[in-house]
Amino acid sequence: MIEIYTDEYFMKEAFKEAQKAAEKDEVPVGAIVVSNKKIISRAHNQVEQFGDITAHAEIIAVTAATNFLGSKTLDECTLYVTLEPCCMCAGAIAHARLQRVVYAADDDKGGFMRFGKKMLHPKTKLEFGIMHEECSQILTEFFKAKRAAL
Amino acid sequence: MIEIYTDEYFMKEAFKEAQKAAEKDEVPVGAIVVSNKKIISRAHNQVEQFGDITAHAEIIAVTAATNFLGSKTLDECTLYVTLEPCCMCAGAIAHARLQRVVYAADDDKGGFMRFGKKMLHPKTKLEFGIMHEECSQILTEFFKAKRAAL
Repeated sequence: MIEIYTDEYFMKEAFKEAQKAAEKDEVPVGAIVVSNKKIISRAHNQVEQFGDITAHAEIIAVTAATNFLGSKTLDECTLYVTLEPCCMCAGAIAHARLQRVVYAADDDKGGFMRFGKKMLHPKTKLEFGIMHEECSQILTEFFKAKRAAL
Repeated sequence: MIEIYTDEYFMKEAFKEAQKAAEKDEVPVGAIVVSNKKIISRAHNQVEQFGDITAHAEIIAVTAATNFLGSKTLDECTLYVTLEPCCMCAGAIAHARLQRVVYAADDDKGGFMRFGKKMLHPKTKLEFGIMHEECSQILTEFFKAKRAAL
């Protein structure tokens, strides 16, 4: 039997969210939360729209998922996000105790991995690199266009 | 001339917020943001009330302050918080580029200082220890009462 609901399938869904952000002139990052192979929340970066520095895709997706499940933790959920989370988002992910986090592009400057995986909950499994190229490229193009417009 | 608006004055205001949290059976942490000696936002932990793991005092106070100023950054503001921020809140504080952060009680287990001051923006000044005893005690008493009720 062919497995449809692969990590790549879900990362593509997160990437669709990043594309929505780009269309709104937001830094293109998208995230989804998956429980038992179902997408229970989807979000994209909305910092500019809300004028809220905390409105990152991961924060919105995680809080929407906890709200949906009526639970403060997401022990059986996976977060797919197109960019390595920042420390703020890694902290929220730690509070939510996600079972798994999968991110695509890395962020050497702003990502939490500067401080190591120990910022997450010890039970959280971490994977990265799936769709790295597409998810990096959409960011590179966004910032290139921003610089050209200056 | 006697200076009224000292760090202790403002930390007392943050402590009042922590007391409000305790009254609502929330982990008693309070925070305020001060701009030019004026309190522009005040908040307490509301995780239980909102069922939202991101509803920490610092997150609410910082987003309310950015909203009040109509700015994404708080370059000329000081955050007073009764407990050492967690990584999520430190990340938000970094995004908001606060001029100064003053915290009271330390949090060896959950605080961001496990990872060092470099989690904050390089321009952010950090101080701690003011009203350490009162701000620690309200937390100790809260958790003691919680354990006794089990």
